[in-house]
Amino acid sequence: MSKVIDFQTDPSRYRHWRVTYDGPVATVFMDVDEKGGLFEGYELKLNSYDLGVDIELADVVQRMRFEHPEVRAVVLRSGKDRVFCAGANIRMLGGASHAHKVNFCKFTNETRNTFEAAGAESGQHYICAVKGACAGGGYELALACDHIILTDDGSSNVALPEVPLLAVLPGTGGLTRVTDKRKVRRDLADVFCSMEEGVRGKRALDWRLVDEVVANSRFEEAVAERARDFAAKSSRAPAEKGIELRPLQRKFADDGSITYSTVEVQVDRAARRATILVNGPEADAPASMDEFVRQGSDAWMLRAARELDDAILHLRLNEMECGLLVIRTQGDPARVAAHEALLLANERHWLAAETLLYWKRVLKRIDMTSRSLVALVEHGSCFAGVLAEILFAVDRSYMMDGEFDGDNRPLAAITLGASNFGRYPMGNDLTRLQTRFLGEPERVGQAEAKIGEALDAEAAEALGLVTFSLDEVDWEDEVRIFCEERASFSPDAMTGMEANLRFAGPETMETRIFGRLTAWQNWIFQRPNAVGKDGALQRYGTGIRGDFNMQRV
Amino acid sequence: MSKVIDFQTDPSRYRHWRVTYDGPVATVFMDVDEKGGLFEGYELKLNSYDLGVDIELADVVQRMRFEHPEVRAVVLRSGKDRVFCAGANIRMLGGASHAHKVNFCKFTNETRNTFEAAGAESGQHYICAVKGACAGGGYELALACDHIILTDDGSSNVALPEVPLLAVLPGTGGLTRVTDKRKVRRDLADVFCSMEEGVRGKRALDWRLVDEVVANSRFEEAVAERARDFAAKSSRAPAEKGIELRPLQRKFADDGSITYSTVEVQVDRAARRATILVNGPEADAPASMDEFVRQGSDAWMLRAARELDDAILHLRLNEMECGLLVIRTQGDPARVAAHEALLLANERHWLAAETLLYWKRVLKRIDMTSRSLVALVEHGSCFAGVLAEILFAVDRSYMMDGEFDGDNRPLAAITLGASNFGRYPMGNDLTRLQTRFLGEPERVGQAEAKIGEALDAEAAEALGLVTFSLDEVDWEDEVRIFCEERASFSPDAMTGMEANLRFAGPETMETRIFGRLTAWQNWIFQRPNAVGKDGALQRYGTGIRGDFNMQRV
Repeated sequence: MSKVIDFQTDPSRYRHWRVTYDGPVATVFMDVDEKGGLFEGYELKLNSYDLGVDIELADVVQRMRFEHPEVRAVVLRSGKDRVFCAGANIRMLGGASHAHKVNFCKFTNETRNTFEAAGAESGQHYICAVKGACAGGGYELALACDHIILTDDGSSNVALPEVPLLAVLPGTGGLTRVTDKRKVRRDLADVFCSMEEGVRGKRALDWRLVDEVVANSRFEEAVAERARDFAAKSSRAPAEKGIELRPLQRKFADDGSITYSTVEVQVDRAARRATILVNGPEADAPASMDEFVRQGSDAWMLRAARELDDAILHLRLNEMECGLLVIRTQGDPARVAAHEALLLANERHWLAAETLLYWKRVLKRIDMTSRSLVALVEHGSCFAGVLAEILFAVDRSYMMDGEFDGDNRPLAAITLGASNFGRYPMGNDLTRLQTRFLGEPERVGQAEAKIGEALDAEAAEALGLVTFSLDEVDWEDEVRIFCEERASFSPDAMTGMEANLRFAGPETMETRIFGRLTAWQNWIFQRPNAVGKDGALQRYGTGIRGDFNMQRV
Repeated sequence: MSKVIDFQTDPSRYRHWRVTYDGPVATVFMDVDEKGGLFEGYELKLNSYDLGVDIELADVVQRMRFEHPEVRAVVLRSGKDRVFCAGANIRMLGGASHAHKVNFCKFTNETRNTFEAAGAESGQHYICAVKGACAGGGYELALACDHIILTDDGSSNVALPEVPLLAVLPGTGGLTRVTDKRKVRRDLADVFCSMEEGVRGKRALDWRLVDEVVANSRFEEAVAERARDFAAKSSRAPAEKGIELRPLQRKFADDGSITYSTVEVQVDRAARRATILVNGPEADAPASMDEFVRQGSDAWMLRAARELDDAILHLRLNEMECGLLVIRTQGDPARVAAHEALLLANERHWLAAETLLYWKRVLKRIDMTSRSLVALVEHGSCFAGVLAEILFAVDRSYMMDGEFDGDNRPLAAITLGASNFGRYPMGNDLTRLQTRFLGEPERVGQAEAKIGEALDAEAAEALGLVTFSLDEVDWEDEVRIFCEERASFSPDAMTGMEANLRFAGPETMETRIFGRLTAWQNWIFQRPNAVGKDGALQRYGTGIRGDFNMQRV
């Protein structure tokens, strides 16, 4: 699996999904092309999915928010007759490397979360209409929706057969959403997750596995009715016409580097490091939201978000040995602040809201990236507002202190904005500054008092906003030593350490999915009982059960 | 590592700890006997520890609460000159099986938690007096204390060098306590956890790693002063003389079965199953707390707790292939309730309080046991009050419904007590019934209304207290099929599934340590970068760093 995975697509290229629009209701049909696997060696039978299928789904959800703001209810259903979705493709999982499996699950988890975010934040509610077998990752798709309708046709069912069938977990949020979102009684959840055959009809409702069971003859009517209900109660403001998410401008170099319009990624494979440079806006902020809408996906705030998002995803899947991401910015901080300010001042405008919410997702994508993250606050940088938020997402930061010989750029400064105090919460529902200052909550207020001021290294360090500030004498050596040392550590220990240090404070369903469920799944994905040559994943389909080491650990 | 590990010890047998008592202040000296390792093949240099050292420590903490109720402050310090504690012994870890490593970490985690529980629940506050190197598991011992004093002698330090040195995590609560208990700023935590050399002096205080740094010349004085302070502000009621925790009466059979005075463990290795039978009290409840004190550790409530605790620990470490624990009871429910009622009615009596708090810990030990847990509510059983709580700790339960031919025992019934509604909270700080009924909180009240009633199978099922009730026709087959099926599943998938389903609802530091940190550590304990032949654990001490696969997952 060494081909480059592209996270960009558009409806003209979809192989697995169809979407129909009918006023406030959109219907998304999952109709996976068996022959359309991302890699060789497996067929996507029974609406099973691989990363390629999920990349299209993520695109569907994203375009719904920007291109179809009129939509208030999204019906998710199968385009095939007898199956809703059989979940992640087992042969793909059996053949994939550990790193691919883990990153595949992470991306699918992030995509499931966007269903819930669309409902909670933008009043685009996902309704899952289940007919046919809805198993494993298929049921996890349903679990991510705001409402599940199951037809009572005597055979359609929901199931999480991973444990008995494959010796792995329902790891795409399944176990967590069963207990925390649907609040299924734990012993019933235990029964449900231990059975291959799943649950159908009234029992599925009694056990809280679905929200509604309807007679098969009434299924279409009930689905349409529920879509109307959700559309009617949606909090979504009446919206204008959407904007088009135009293709990203990207240029890939042979060494792995990428040049976008505003983001530059420089890959140094020998040093196991990638540097992401975000350039501030080239032009002044649009004068009004009308102008912003006219610019559409070319507007800097939206373009930079899309490019940064794509860059992170690309590095995650395609440059797995780059264990350290160095994040830099260059540009005019005042201009960054002005571009963001337009949206903050018009937060009730649908496109302003969607753009800010997209940044929230991009920043979470950074939080969730299993690479060591460092930010360099150099002279000429523009860590202001939304870009300053990156400083509080990374594992540590270094800031230039004072003049550097021969460097004529404006002295390094950090400019906090109102957005750093609530606009972009983390998965734990706290702001990054709140999480940073759990031990000294008064520091959040001290930082807030400095909104809009250009904070030099001394001020930033005193406020606790950067890890280290370094003068000309120390900068180069210290940063180099850090980068070299970091890239030499065991990547696994880094991943585990960062997963624990980044998310202090309260837990949410989201942090539990990425922190707890994912960790257990990753563990199981290493165990011979699942992935060994006689393990359940390898033997799937042979009719022979896995040969297990029965020791409990 | 196949020798039987015994969790029972007493001060006359300690090899690694000394305790001195001075009124309300006890001092615990860690002075590990290098030659006293539990297994061959390593020496416990530099006050490093293995499971044997920790079993003694757990005994120290437990006896402090029962045998020394006068103690209000416990000073933990080193009995060696130049080192506080170097953490878990690396050669032991390098040689141990995955299952041993994981269970070793679980037990040490449980023991660390008892420090905090002793302070919070019984006003026995642990103060860590650090002189010399305090690294890895050594610092994690300190982190579990209520207060850390570090001497400023120019060399004494605290450190978590696991990641850079060993490519594993500070997994005995270290990462979680750094962020969640001590609330160290995440980027400083990142720096701290990436450095081998640790932090000393004022910086340790500035970074919140310790509570107090004192000049070396003032160290003894400061430690004594702090012990007096904590003793003075302890909430502990003036206590009587303690009781002696006498040796357990146990008889081991060749087939692994164990007969205690009130608990019987039957091991069926071929079926990979152990059955734990808890027998109710043989005699009426003590008439008063004076009588209870006279009975001391022979009182049924205390004796049953100690025996059940020992049985669980024994099975965890010594019967690793028994993946299913079947829990049964037999006896008079009214008598169980009466024994518990005496303590509940005298909850301000120190020994009543300690006994109930011990049950809280034993029940948590059950929650945390990585085995499938099932309870059988049979005729003649005594699932009342504290024993009924076991029904809500297990993964699922089966109850006999109606008369069974030839069975003259009293019909199966469950009797809830007031204790099921707050006395024994789980690690998530909810009661087990609250956790069970997260989706239908009104059911907790419905159950509470039935306190004291003998609930037959129909009533218990209607209240949601059991998973399945079965009549004579189905009982034997259904239970047998469940046991066989359960014992056939991949143990790893079971462990991961149960770890996710058991702890819905809010998270606490405790659930994060066992749920998130432990899972990541278990994952790393499977990765070649740590445990492979060229991994960091194996190469430790050779002067050669681990040879890492640099792919990030």
